[in-house]
Amino acid sequence: MSVSLDNLCVHTITTKPWGLDTAARKYAAAGVKGMSIWRDAAQAFDGSIKAAGQMVRDEGIDIVSYVRGGFFSALEASDRQKAIDENKIIIDEAAELEAPLIALVVGATPGQSLFESRQQITDGIAAVLPHAEAAGVKLGIEPLHPMYADSRSAVTTMAQSNAICDAINHPYLGIALDVFHVWWDDQLEEQTRIAGEKERLFAFHICDWKDQPEDMLNDRGLMGEGVIDIPQIRSWVNASGFSGYEEVEIFSNKYWAMDQDQYLEMIKEAYLKTV
Amino acid sequence: MSVSLDNLCVHTITTKPWGLDTAARKYAAAGVKGMSIWRDAAQAFDGSIKAAGQMVRDEGIDIVSYVRGGFFSALEASDRQKAIDENKIIIDEAAELEAPLIALVVGATPGQSLFESRQQITDGIAAVLPHAEAAGVKLGIEPLHPMYADSRSAVTTMAQSNAICDAINHPYLGIALDVFHVWWDDQLEEQTRIAGEKERLFAFHICDWKDQPEDMLNDRGLMGEGVIDIPQIRSWVNASGFSGYEEVEIFSNKYWAMDQDQYLEMIKEAYLKTV
Repeated sequence: MSVSLDNLCVHTITTKPWGLDTAARKYAAAGVKGMSIWRDAAQAFDGSIKAAGQMVRDEGIDIVSYVRGGFFSALEASDRQKAIDENKIIIDEAAELEAPLIALVVGATPGQSLFESRQQITDGIAAVLPHAEAAGVKLGIEPLHPMYADSRSAVTTMAQSNAICDAINHPYLGIALDVFHVWWDDQLEEQTRIAGEKERLFAFHICDWKDQPEDMLNDRGLMGEGVIDIPQIRSWVNASGFSGYEEVEIFSNKYWAMDQDQYLEMIKEAYLKTV
Repeated sequence: MSVSLDNLCVHTITTKPWGLDTAARKYAAAGVKGMSIWRDAAQAFDGSIKAAGQMVRDEGIDIVSYVRGGFFSALEASDRQKAIDENKIIIDEAAELEAPLIALVVGATPGQSLFESRQQITDGIAAVLPHAEAAGVKLGIEPLHPMYADSRSAVTTMAQSNAICDAINHPYLGIALDVFHVWWDDQLEEQTRIAGEKERLFAFHICDWKDQPEDMLNDRGLMGEGVIDIPQIRSWVNASGFSGYEEVEIFSNKYWAMDQDQYLEMIKEAYLKTV
Protein backbone atom coordinates (compact mmCIF):
# COMPACT_ATOMS: atom_id res chain seq x y z
CA MET A 1 0.00 0.00 0.00
CA SER A 2 1.22 3.50 -0.79
CA VAL A 3 2.20 5.46 2.30
CA SER A 4 2.77 8.76 0.51
CA LEU A 5 1.83 10.64 -2.61
CA ASP A 6 5.45 10.77 -3.78
CA ASN A 7 4.82 8.46 -6.75
CA LEU A 8 1.36 9.73 -7.65
CA CYS A 9 0.96 11.11 -11.15
CA VAL A 10 -2.36 12.17 -12.70
CA HIS A 11 -3.16 12.39 -16.40
CA THR A 12 -4.71 15.64 -17.54
CA ILE A 13 -7.53 13.69 -19.14
CA THR A 14 -8.45 12.28 -15.74
CA THR A 15 -9.56 15.77 -14.72
CA LYS A 16 -10.63 16.72 -18.22
CA PRO A 17 -12.83 19.69 -17.24
CA TRP A 18 -9.73 21.52 -15.99
CA GLY A 19 -7.41 23.35 -18.36
CA LEU A 20 -3.69 22.60 -18.08
CA ASP A 21 -2.96 25.61 -15.85
CA THR A 22 -5.82 24.85 -13.47
CA ALA A 23 -4.81 21.20 -13.34
CA ALA A 24 -1.17 22.06 -12.56
CA ARG A 25 -2.19 24.48 -9.78
CA LYS A 26 -4.72 22.07 -8.29
CA TYR A 27 -2.42 19.04 -8.47
CA ALA A 28 0.37 21.02 -6.79
CA ALA A 29 -1.95 22.23 -4.03
CA ALA A 30 -3.14 18.65 -3.48
CA GLY A 31 0.39 17.26 -3.20
CA VAL A 32 0.32 15.38 -6.51
CA LYS A 33 3.92 15.26 -7.73
CA GLY A 34 3.60 14.13 -11.34
CA MET A 35 1.49 14.96 -14.36
CA SER A 36 1.10 13.27 -17.70
CA ILE A 37 0.00 15.74 -20.30
CA TRP A 38 -2.39 14.89 -23.08
CA ARG A 39 -1.85 16.53 -26.41
CA ASP A 40 -5.20 18.30 -26.40
CA ALA A 41 -4.39 19.87 -23.02
CA ALA A 42 -0.98 21.09 -24.21
CA GLN A 43 -2.43 22.48 -27.43
CA ALA A 44 -5.25 24.28 -25.63
CA PHE A 45 -2.79 26.07 -23.33
CA ASP A 46 -2.67 29.82 -23.88
CA GLY A 47 0.99 30.01 -24.86
CA SER A 48 3.63 27.85 -26.53
CA ILE A 49 4.07 24.18 -25.68
CA LYS A 50 7.48 25.11 -24.24
CA ALA A 51 5.75 27.66 -21.99
CA ALA A 52 3.20 25.03 -20.98
CA GLY A 53 5.99 22.77 -19.80
CA GLN A 54 7.65 25.61 -17.88
CA MET A 55 4.36 26.55 -16.24
CA VAL A 56 3.85 22.98 -15.00
CA ARG A 57 7.41 22.73 -13.67
CA ASP A 58 7.04 26.14 -12.00
CA GLU A 59 4.22 24.59 -9.96
CA GLY A 60 6.72 21.99 -8.76
CA ILE A 61 5.21 19.22 -10.86
CA ASP A 62 7.21 16.62 -12.80
CA ILE A 63 6.09 15.99 -16.35
CA VAL A 64 5.96 12.21 -16.59
CA SER A 65 4.74 11.54 -20.10
CA TYR A 66 3.15 13.05 -23.16
CA VAL A 67 0.03 11.30 -24.40
CA ARG A 68 -0.16 10.16 -27.09
CA GLY A 69 1.59 9.12 -30.28
CA GLY A 70 1.00 6.11 -32.47
CA PHE A 71 -1.63 4.96 -34.98
CA PHE A 72 1.07 3.70 -37.33
CA SER A 73 -0.94 1.15 -39.34
CA ALA A 74 -2.89 1.99 -42.50
CA LEU A 75 -3.91 0.27 -45.73
CA GLU A 76 -1.97 2.77 -47.87
CA ALA A 77 1.79 3.35 -47.64
CA SER A 78 1.21 7.09 -48.03
CA ASP A 79 -0.98 7.08 -44.92
CA ARG A 80 1.66 5.17 -43.00
CA GLN A 81 4.19 7.82 -44.01
CA LYS A 82 1.80 10.53 -42.79
CA ALA A 83 1.63 8.74 -39.43
CA ILE A 84 5.42 8.68 -39.23
CA ASP A 85 5.58 12.42 -40.00
CA GLU A 86 2.89 13.17 -37.42
CA ASN A 87 4.71 11.16 -34.77
CA LYS A 88 7.87 13.17 -35.39
CA ILE A 89 5.87 16.32 -34.67
CA ILE A 90 4.53 14.71 -31.48
CA ILE A 91 8.10 13.86 -30.48
CA ASP A 92 9.11 17.50 -31.06
CA GLU A 93 6.22 18.64 -28.87
CA ALA A 94 7.27 16.23 -26.11
CA ALA A 95 10.80 17.61 -26.31
CA GLU A 96 9.49 21.18 -25.98
CA LEU A 97 7.48 20.10 -22.95
CA GLU A 98 10.59 18.32 -21.65
CA ALA A 99 8.48 15.20 -21.26
CA PRO A 100 10.80 12.18 -21.11
CA LEU A 101 8.32 9.71 -22.59
CA ILE A 102 5.52 9.40 -25.11
CA ALA A 103 2.82 6.78 -24.62
CA LEU A 104 1.98 5.10 -27.92
CA VAL A 105 -1.48 3.89 -28.87
CA VAL A 106 -0.20 2.00 -31.83
CA GLY A 107 -3.28 1.68 -34.05
CA ALA A 108 -5.09 -1.07 -35.93
CA THR A 109 -6.65 -1.10 -39.35
CA PRO A 110 -9.91 -2.76 -40.33
CA GLY A 111 -9.46 -4.63 -43.59
CA GLN A 112 -6.13 -6.19 -42.73
CA SER A 113 -5.05 -8.74 -40.14
CA LEU A 114 -3.71 -7.77 -36.74
CA PHE A 115 -0.46 -9.49 -37.75
CA GLU A 116 -0.16 -7.17 -40.75
CA SER A 117 -1.01 -4.13 -38.61
CA ARG A 118 1.62 -5.13 -36.05
CA GLN A 119 4.25 -5.38 -38.76
CA GLN A 120 3.38 -1.88 -39.97
CA ILE A 121 3.44 -0.64 -36.38
CA THR A 122 6.89 -2.15 -35.90
CA ASP A 123 8.10 -0.47 -39.08
CA GLY A 124 6.58 2.86 -38.09
CA ILE A 125 8.10 2.86 -34.64
CA ALA A 126 11.50 1.91 -36.06
CA ALA A 127 11.23 4.81 -38.48
CA VAL A 128 10.68 7.44 -35.77
CA LEU A 129 13.06 6.12 -33.12
CA PRO A 130 16.15 7.96 -34.39
CA HIS A 131 14.13 11.19 -34.19
CA ALA A 132 13.02 10.29 -30.67
CA GLU A 133 16.55 9.51 -29.54
CA ALA A 134 17.87 12.77 -30.99
CA ALA A 135 15.12 14.62 -29.10
CA GLY A 136 15.81 12.73 -25.87
CA VAL A 137 12.26 11.37 -25.73
CA LYS A 138 11.55 7.69 -25.11
CA LEU A 139 8.58 5.82 -26.60
CA GLY A 140 6.39 3.42 -24.63
CA ILE A 141 4.12 0.97 -26.44
CA GLU A 142 0.87 0.75 -24.49
CA PRO A 143 -0.88 -2.55 -25.16
CA LEU A 144 -4.63 -1.88 -25.21
CA HIS A 145 -7.47 -4.14 -24.16
CA PRO A 146 -8.62 -6.52 -26.93
CA MET A 147 -11.94 -4.66 -27.04
CA TYR A 148 -9.98 -1.92 -28.86
CA ALA A 149 -8.40 -4.25 -31.41
CA ASP A 150 -10.78 -3.15 -34.14
CA SER A 151 -9.18 0.19 -34.94
CA ARG A 152 -7.14 1.45 -31.96
CA SER A 153 -4.51 -1.13 -31.14
CA ALA A 154 -3.42 -4.34 -32.81
CA VAL A 155 -1.15 -4.76 -29.77
CA THR A 156 -3.28 -6.25 -27.01
CA THR A 157 -0.77 -7.97 -24.74
CA MET A 158 2.51 -7.45 -22.95
CA ALA A 159 3.87 -10.42 -24.93
CA GLN A 160 3.21 -8.67 -28.24
CA SER A 161 4.73 -5.47 -26.85
CA ASN A 162 7.83 -7.35 -25.76
CA ALA A 163 8.02 -8.99 -29.19
CA ILE A 164 8.01 -5.61 -30.96
CA CYS A 165 10.64 -4.28 -28.56
CA ASP A 166 12.76 -7.38 -29.19
CA ALA A 167 12.43 -6.94 -32.94
CA ILE A 168 13.51 -3.29 -32.84
CA ASN A 169 15.89 -3.54 -29.88
CA HIS A 170 16.45 0.14 -29.13
CA PRO A 171 17.06 1.67 -25.68
CA TYR A 172 14.51 4.41 -26.38
CA LEU A 173 11.69 1.90 -26.96
CA GLY A 174 9.80 0.29 -24.10
CA ILE A 175 6.35 -0.40 -22.70
CA ALA A 176 3.66 1.51 -20.82
CA LEU A 177 1.66 -0.97 -18.76
CA ASP A 178 -1.90 0.06 -17.96
CA VAL A 179 -3.74 -2.26 -15.58
CA PHE A 180 -7.06 -1.53 -17.32
CA HIS A 181 -5.82 -3.04 -20.55
CA VAL A 182 -3.86 -6.08 -19.42
CA TRP A 183 -5.27 -7.20 -16.06
CA TRP A 184 -7.09 -10.19 -17.60
CA ASP A 185 -3.98 -11.68 -19.25
CA ASP A 186 -2.60 -14.78 -17.56
CA GLN A 187 0.84 -14.06 -18.98
CA LEU A 188 0.98 -10.65 -17.30
CA GLU A 189 3.32 -11.58 -14.45
CA GLU A 190 5.78 -13.38 -16.71
CA GLN A 191 5.77 -10.76 -19.44
CA THR A 192 6.18 -7.94 -16.91
CA ARG A 193 9.20 -9.77 -15.51
CA ILE A 194 10.66 -10.03 -19.00
CA ALA A 195 10.04 -6.33 -19.66
CA GLY A 196 11.84 -5.52 -16.42
CA GLU A 197 14.81 -7.73 -17.22
CA LYS A 198 15.20 -5.94 -20.51
CA GLU A 199 14.86 -2.53 -18.80
CA ARG A 200 11.97 -1.53 -20.95
CA LEU A 201 9.10 -1.05 -18.50
CA PHE A 202 8.82 2.72 -18.86
CA ALA A 203 5.42 3.55 -17.35
CA PHE A 204 2.70 2.17 -15.09
CA HIS A 205 -0.88 3.38 -15.48
CA ILE A 206 -3.59 2.67 -12.93
CA CYS A 207 -7.37 2.84 -12.64
CA ASP A 208 -9.89 0.01 -12.25
CA TRP A 209 -12.14 -2.18 -14.38
CA LYS A 210 -15.65 -1.93 -12.99
CA ASP A 211 -17.88 -5.01 -12.85
CA GLN A 212 -19.78 -4.67 -16.13
CA PRO A 213 -18.85 -1.17 -17.28
CA GLU A 214 -21.63 0.83 -18.89
CA ASP A 215 -19.45 2.13 -21.68
CA MET A 216 -16.50 0.75 -23.62
CA LEU A 217 -14.53 3.98 -23.35
CA ASN A 218 -15.62 6.26 -20.58
CA ASP A 219 -16.67 4.21 -17.59
CA ARG A 220 -13.34 3.39 -15.98
CA GLY A 221 -13.28 3.07 -12.22
CA LEU A 222 -11.23 4.58 -9.45
CA MET A 223 -8.64 2.24 -7.99
CA GLY A 224 -10.45 -0.18 -5.67
CA GLU A 225 -13.81 0.26 -7.35
CA GLY A 226 -13.52 -2.72 -9.66
CA VAL A 227 -12.12 -6.18 -10.17
CA ILE A 228 -8.42 -5.54 -10.78
CA ASP A 229 -5.99 -6.69 -8.09
CA ILE A 230 -3.82 -3.58 -8.39
CA PRO A 231 -1.50 -4.38 -5.45
CA GLN A 232 -0.75 -7.74 -7.09
CA ILE A 233 0.11 -6.15 -10.43
CA ARG A 234 2.03 -3.37 -8.71
CA SER A 235 4.10 -5.99 -6.90
CA TRP A 236 5.03 -7.56 -10.27
CA VAL A 237 5.83 -4.14 -11.69
CA ASN A 238 8.02 -3.24 -8.73
CA ALA A 239 9.68 -6.67 -8.73
CA SER A 240 10.63 -6.00 -12.35
CA GLY A 241 12.64 -3.01 -11.17
CA PHE A 242 10.17 -0.22 -11.91
CA SER A 243 10.00 2.44 -9.21
CA GLY A 244 8.66 5.40 -11.16
CA TYR A 245 5.36 7.23 -11.05
CA GLU A 246 2.02 5.50 -10.79
CA GLU A 247 -0.09 7.34 -13.33
CA VAL A 248 -3.81 7.67 -12.72
CA GLU A 249 -5.50 7.60 -16.11
CA ILE A 250 -9.29 7.46 -15.84
CA PHE A 251 -11.79 8.16 -18.60
CA SER A 252 -15.16 8.52 -16.92
CA ASN A 253 -18.26 10.43 -17.89
CA LYS A 254 -19.39 9.98 -14.30
CA TYR A 255 -16.28 11.48 -12.71
CA TRP A 256 -15.88 14.22 -15.29
CA ALA A 257 -19.43 15.34 -14.38
CA MET A 258 -18.63 15.83 -10.70
CA ASP A 259 -16.80 18.57 -8.81
CA GLN A 260 -13.16 18.07 -9.82
CA ASP A 261 -11.68 19.28 -6.52
CA GLN A 262 -13.69 16.66 -4.70
CA TYR A 263 -12.76 14.08 -7.34
CA LEU A 264 -9.04 14.80 -6.92
CA GLU A 265 -9.42 14.14 -3.20
CA MET A 266 -11.12 10.83 -4.03
CA ILE A 267 -8.23 9.94 -6.33
CA LYS A 268 -5.71 10.60 -3.56
CA GLU A 269 -7.73 8.59 -1.08
CA ALA A 270 -8.15 5.67 -3.49
CA TYR A 271 -4.44 5.79 -4.29
CA LEU A 272 -3.37 5.68 -0.65
CA LYS A 273 -5.88 2.98 0.21
CA THR A 274 -5.68 0.65 -2.77
CA VAL A 275 -2.50 0.97 -4.79
CA MET B 1 -17.82 -19.10 -49.20
CA SER B 2 -21.02 -20.95 -48.33
CA VAL B 3 -22.91 -22.15 -51.37
CA SER B 4 -25.97 -23.37 -49.49
CA LEU B 5 -27.82 -22.90 -46.24
CA ASP B 6 -27.25 -26.52 -45.24
CA ASN B 7 -24.96 -25.62 -42.33
CA LEU B 8 -26.79 -22.48 -41.21
CA CYS B 9 -28.06 -22.46 -37.65
CA VAL B 10 -29.62 -19.47 -35.92
CA HIS B 11 -29.80 -18.85 -32.18
CA THR B 12 -33.23 -17.96 -30.84
CA ILE B 13 -31.72 -14.89 -29.17
CA THR B 14 -30.67 -13.61 -32.60
CA THR B 15 -34.35 -13.11 -33.43
CA LYS B 16 -35.32 -12.35 -29.85
CA PRO B 17 -38.68 -10.70 -30.62
CA TRP B 18 -39.97 -14.03 -31.94
CA GLY B 19 -41.23 -16.73 -29.60
CA LEU B 20 -39.87 -20.24 -30.09
CA ASP B 21 -42.79 -21.42 -32.21
CA THR B 22 -42.67 -18.38 -34.49
CA ALA B 23 -38.90 -18.71 -34.81
CA ALA B 24 -39.13 -22.41 -35.71
CA ARG B 25 -41.81 -21.73 -38.34
CA LYS B 26 -39.97 -18.75 -39.82
CA TYR B 27 -36.58 -20.47 -39.87
CA ALA B 28 -38.11 -23.51 -41.59
CA ALA B 29 -39.83 -21.35 -44.19
CA ALA B 30 -36.56 -19.51 -44.82
CA GLY B 31 -34.57 -22.72 -45.31
CA VAL B 32 -32.58 -22.44 -42.09
CA LYS B 33 -31.75 -26.00 -41.04
CA GLY B 34 -30.52 -25.61 -37.47
CA MET B 35 -31.58 -23.80 -34.32
CA SER B 36 -29.82 -23.24 -31.03
CA ILE B 37 -32.35 -22.72 -28.30
CA TRP B 38 -31.82 -20.30 -25.45
CA ARG B 39 -33.18 -21.26 -22.08
CA ASP B 40 -35.53 -18.30 -21.88
CA ALA B 41 -37.08 -19.24 -25.22
CA ALA B 42 -37.59 -22.85 -24.13
CA GLN B 43 -39.08 -21.81 -20.81
CA ALA B 44 -41.44 -19.27 -22.41
CA PHE B 45 -42.84 -21.95 -24.74
CA ASP B 46 -46.48 -22.77 -24.06
CA GLY B 47 -45.96 -26.43 -23.24
CA SER B 48 -43.30 -28.70 -21.78
CA ILE B 49 -39.66 -28.44 -22.77
CA LYS B 50 -40.03 -31.89 -24.33
CA ALA B 51 -42.94 -30.59 -26.40
CA ALA B 52 -40.87 -27.55 -27.40
CA GLY B 53 -38.19 -29.85 -28.80
CA GLN B 54 -40.76 -31.91 -30.67
CA MET B 55 -42.38 -28.79 -32.13
CA VAL B 56 -39.02 -27.60 -33.48
CA ARG B 57 -38.20 -31.00 -34.98
CA ASP B 58 -41.68 -31.20 -36.49
CA GLU B 59 -40.77 -28.07 -38.45
CA GLY B 60 -37.83 -30.00 -39.87
CA ILE B 61 -35.27 -28.09 -37.83
CA ASP B 62 -32.27 -29.66 -36.08
CA ILE B 63 -31.69 -28.58 -32.50
CA VAL B 64 -27.98 -27.78 -32.41
CA SER B 65 -27.37 -26.60 -28.87
CA TYR B 66 -29.01 -25.42 -25.68
CA VAL B 67 -27.79 -22.08 -24.36
CA ARG B 68 -26.57 -21.79 -21.72
CA GLY B 69 -25.09 -23.42 -18.64
CA GLY B 70 -22.11 -22.38 -16.58
CA PHE B 71 -21.35 -19.70 -13.98
CA PHE B 72 -19.51 -22.21 -11.82
CA SER B 73 -17.28 -19.84 -9.82
CA ALA B 74 -18.31 -18.19 -6.54
CA LEU B 75 -16.65 -17.01 -3.34
CA GLU B 76 -18.65 -19.45 -1.20
CA ALA B 77 -18.57 -23.24 -1.57
CA SER B 78 -22.33 -23.36 -1.02
CA ASP B 79 -22.86 -21.09 -4.02
CA ARG B 80 -20.59 -23.25 -6.12
CA GLN B 81 -22.70 -26.27 -5.13
CA LYS B 82 -25.85 -24.37 -6.14
CA ALA B 83 -24.29 -23.75 -9.55
CA ILE B 84 -23.56 -27.47 -9.92
CA ASP B 85 -27.15 -28.32 -9.01
CA GLU B 86 -28.49 -25.72 -11.44
CA ASN B 87 -26.31 -27.04 -14.25
CA LYS B 88 -27.70 -30.54 -13.69
CA ILE B 89 -31.18 -29.10 -14.20
CA ILE B 90 -29.99 -27.39 -17.38
CA ILE B 91 -28.56 -30.71 -18.58
CA ASP B 92 -31.93 -32.38 -17.91
CA GLU B 93 -33.66 -29.65 -19.91
CA ALA B 94 -31.25 -30.14 -22.79
CA ALA B 95 -31.96 -33.88 -22.69
CA GLU B 96 -35.72 -33.22 -22.82
CA LEU B 97 -35.15 -30.95 -25.80
CA GLU B 98 -32.92 -33.63 -27.32
CA ALA B 99 -30.24 -30.97 -27.74
CA PRO B 100 -26.87 -32.72 -28.12
CA LEU B 101 -24.82 -29.88 -26.63
CA ILE B 102 -24.90 -27.15 -23.99
CA ALA B 103 -22.81 -24.00 -24.46
CA LEU B 104 -21.16 -23.00 -21.20
CA VAL B 105 -20.56 -19.42 -20.14
CA VAL B 106 -18.33 -20.45 -17.32
CA GLY B 107 -18.46 -17.45 -14.98
CA ALA B 108 -16.00 -15.23 -13.12
CA THR B 109 -16.09 -13.83 -9.64
CA PRO B 110 -15.01 -10.34 -8.58
CA GLY B 111 -12.94 -10.58 -5.42
CA GLN B 112 -10.84 -13.53 -6.50
CA SER B 113 -8.26 -14.03 -9.22
CA LEU B 114 -9.13 -15.40 -12.63
CA PHE B 115 -6.80 -18.32 -11.84
CA GLU B 116 -8.90 -19.15 -8.77
CA SER B 117 -12.13 -18.79 -10.75
CA ARG B 118 -10.79 -21.09 -13.46
CA GLN B 119 -9.95 -23.74 -10.88
CA GLN B 120 -13.50 -23.57 -9.51
CA ILE B 121 -14.87 -23.72 -13.04
CA THR B 122 -12.78 -26.81 -13.73
CA ASP B 123 -14.07 -28.44 -10.55
CA GLY B 124 -17.67 -27.50 -11.34
CA ILE B 125 -17.56 -28.86 -14.86
CA ALA B 126 -15.94 -32.08 -13.64
CA ALA B 127 -18.74 -32.44 -11.09
CA VAL B 128 -21.53 -32.26 -13.67
CA LEU B 129 -19.94 -34.27 -16.48
CA PRO B 130 -21.14 -37.70 -15.27
CA HIS B 131 -24.69 -36.29 -15.26
CA ALA B 132 -24.15 -34.88 -18.75
CA GLU B 133 -22.81 -38.18 -20.07
CA ALA B 134 -25.71 -40.12 -18.56
CA ALA B 135 -28.11 -37.69 -20.24
CA GLY B 136 -26.28 -37.90 -23.57
CA VAL B 137 -25.59 -34.15 -23.61
CA LYS B 138 -22.12 -32.77 -24.34
CA LEU B 139 -20.75 -29.57 -22.79
CA GLY B 140 -18.88 -26.90 -24.75
CA ILE B 141 -16.80 -24.31 -22.93
CA GLU B 142 -17.25 -21.00 -24.75
CA PRO B 143 -14.30 -18.70 -24.12
CA LEU B 144 -15.63 -15.14 -23.89
CA HIS B 145 -13.95 -11.90 -24.89
CA PRO B 146 -11.70 -10.45 -22.15
CA MET B 147 -14.13 -7.53 -21.82
CA TYR B 148 -16.38 -10.01 -19.99
CA ALA B 149 -13.68 -11.24 -17.60
CA ASP B 150 -15.07 -9.21 -14.73
CA SER B 151 -18.02 -11.41 -13.88
CA ARG B 152 -19.04 -13.52 -16.90
CA SER B 153 -16.06 -15.61 -17.93
CA ALA B 154 -12.64 -16.17 -16.45
CA VAL B 155 -11.96 -18.20 -19.60
CA THR B 156 -11.01 -15.73 -22.32
CA THR B 157 -8.97 -17.80 -24.77
CA MET B 158 -8.98 -21.06 -26.68
CA ALA B 159 -5.73 -21.92 -24.88
CA GLN B 160 -7.41 -21.71 -21.47
CA SER B 161 -10.34 -23.74 -22.82
CA ASN B 162 -7.99 -26.40 -24.11
CA ALA B 163 -6.18 -26.42 -20.76
CA ILE B 164 -9.41 -27.10 -18.86
CA CYS B 165 -10.36 -29.82 -21.32
CA ASP B 166 -6.90 -31.38 -20.90
CA ALA B 167 -7.23 -31.27 -17.12
CA ILE B 168 -10.63 -32.99 -17.14
CA ASN B 169 -10.08 -35.19 -20.20
CA HIS B 170 -13.64 -36.37 -20.84
CA PRO B 171 -15.19 -37.12 -24.25
CA TYR B 172 -18.31 -35.13 -23.35
CA LEU B 173 -16.32 -31.93 -22.73
CA GLY B 174 -15.21 -29.68 -25.56
CA ILE B 175 -15.22 -26.10 -26.82
CA ALA B 176 -17.67 -23.74 -28.51
CA LEU B 177 -15.68 -21.25 -30.57
CA ASP B 178 -17.39 -17.89 -31.17
CA VAL B 179 -15.53 -15.58 -33.54
CA PHE B 180 -16.77 -12.51 -31.64
CA HIS B 181 -14.92 -13.57 -28.52
CA VAL B 182 -11.63 -14.91 -29.86
CA TRP B 183 -10.93 -13.20 -33.19
CA TRP B 184 -8.24 -10.92 -31.69
CA ASP B 185 -6.15 -13.77 -30.23
CA ASP B 186 -2.94 -14.48 -32.10
CA GLN B 187 -2.96 -18.07 -30.82
CA LEU B 188 -6.36 -18.76 -32.38
CA GLU B 189 -5.17 -20.78 -35.36
CA GLU B 190 -2.84 -22.96 -33.30
CA GLN B 191 -5.31 -23.52 -30.47
CA THR B 192 -8.11 -24.35 -32.90
CA ARG B 193 -5.84 -26.92 -34.51
CA ILE B 194 -5.16 -28.44 -31.09
CA ALA B 195 -8.87 -28.53 -30.26
CA GLY B 196 -9.49 -30.32 -33.53
CA GLU B 197 -6.74 -32.87 -32.96
CA LYS B 198 -8.30 -33.72 -29.63
CA GLU B 199 -11.79 -33.93 -31.19
CA ARG B 200 -13.19 -31.34 -28.87
CA LEU B 201 -14.29 -28.53 -31.16
CA PHE B 202 -18.03 -28.95 -30.65
CA ALA B 203 -19.52 -25.70 -31.96
CA PHE B 204 -18.77 -22.71 -34.15
CA HIS B 205 -20.57 -19.41 -33.55
CA ILE B 206 -20.49 -16.53 -36.00
CA CYS B 207 -21.35 -12.83 -36.11
CA ASP B 208 -19.03 -9.83 -36.51
CA TRP B 209 -17.19 -7.29 -34.36
CA LYS B 210 -18.12 -3.83 -35.59
CA ASP B 211 -15.50 -1.09 -35.73
CA GLN B 212 -16.03 0.59 -32.36
CA PRO B 213 -19.27 -0.99 -31.12
CA GLU B 214 -21.66 1.31 -29.31
CA ASP B 215 -22.40 -1.17 -26.58
CA MET B 216 -20.43 -3.90 -24.82
CA LEU B 217 -23.26 -6.41 -25.06
CA ASN B 218 -25.83 -5.65 -27.69
CA ASP B 219 -24.13 -4.14 -30.71
CA ARG B 220 -22.80 -7.19 -32.49
CA GLY B 221 -22.65 -7.05 -36.25
CA LEU B 222 -23.90 -9.24 -39.06
CA MET B 223 -21.20 -11.30 -40.72
CA GLY B 224 -19.25 -8.99 -43.03
CA GLU B 225 -20.22 -5.83 -41.19
CA GLY B 226 -17.12 -5.67 -39.03
CA VAL B 227 -13.45 -6.42 -38.71
CA ILE B 228 -13.38 -10.21 -38.26
CA ASP B 229 -11.95 -12.28 -41.08
CA ILE B 230 -14.59 -14.99 -40.76
CA PRO B 231 -13.52 -17.01 -43.84
CA GLN B 232 -10.02 -17.20 -42.37
CA ILE B 233 -11.27 -18.46 -39.01
CA ARG B 234 -13.73 -20.78 -40.72
CA SER B 235 -10.87 -22.28 -42.71
CA TRP B 236 -9.01 -23.02 -39.46
CA VAL B 237 -12.15 -24.51 -37.94
CA ASN B 238 -12.78 -26.70 -40.97
CA ALA B 239 -9.12 -27.73 -41.17
CA SER B 240 -9.42 -28.90 -37.57
CA GLY B 241 -12.05 -31.38 -38.72
CA PHE B 242 -15.21 -29.49 -37.76
CA SER B 243 -17.98 -29.71 -40.33
CA GLY B 244 -21.05 -28.99 -38.22
CA TYR B 245 -23.45 -26.10 -38.11
CA GLU B 246 -22.36 -22.47 -38.28
CA GLU B 247 -24.44 -20.83 -35.57
CA VAL B 248 -25.45 -17.21 -36.01
CA GLU B 249 -25.55 -15.66 -32.55
CA ILE B 250 -26.10 -11.91 -32.66
CA PHE B 251 -27.09 -9.68 -29.76
CA SER B 252 -28.14 -6.38 -31.26
CA ASN B 253 -30.52 -3.70 -30.09
CA LYS B 254 -30.44 -2.39 -33.64
CA TYR B 255 -31.44 -5.65 -35.31
CA TRP B 256 -33.95 -6.63 -32.63
CA ALA B 257 -35.73 -3.32 -33.34
CA MET B 258 -36.23 -4.06 -37.04
CA ASP B 259 -38.68 -6.28 -38.90
CA GLN B 260 -37.50 -9.80 -38.07
CA ASP B 261 -38.57 -11.34 -41.39
CA GLN B 262 -36.44 -8.82 -43.21
CA TYR B 263 -33.62 -9.38 -40.71
CA LEU B 264 -33.68 -13.14 -41.28
CA GLU B 265 -33.28 -12.52 -45.00
CA MET B 266 -30.28 -10.28 -44.23
CA ILE B 267 -28.77 -13.04 -42.10
CA LYS B 268 -29.10 -15.54 -44.95
CA GLU B 269 -27.62 -13.09 -47.42
CA ALA B 270 -24.70 -12.24 -45.10
CA TYR B 271 -24.11 -15.94 -44.47
CA LEU B 272 -23.99 -16.83 -48.15
CA LYS B 273 -21.83 -13.84 -49.01
CA THR B 274 -19.35 -13.73 -46.12
CA VAL B 275 -19.01 -16.99 -44.24
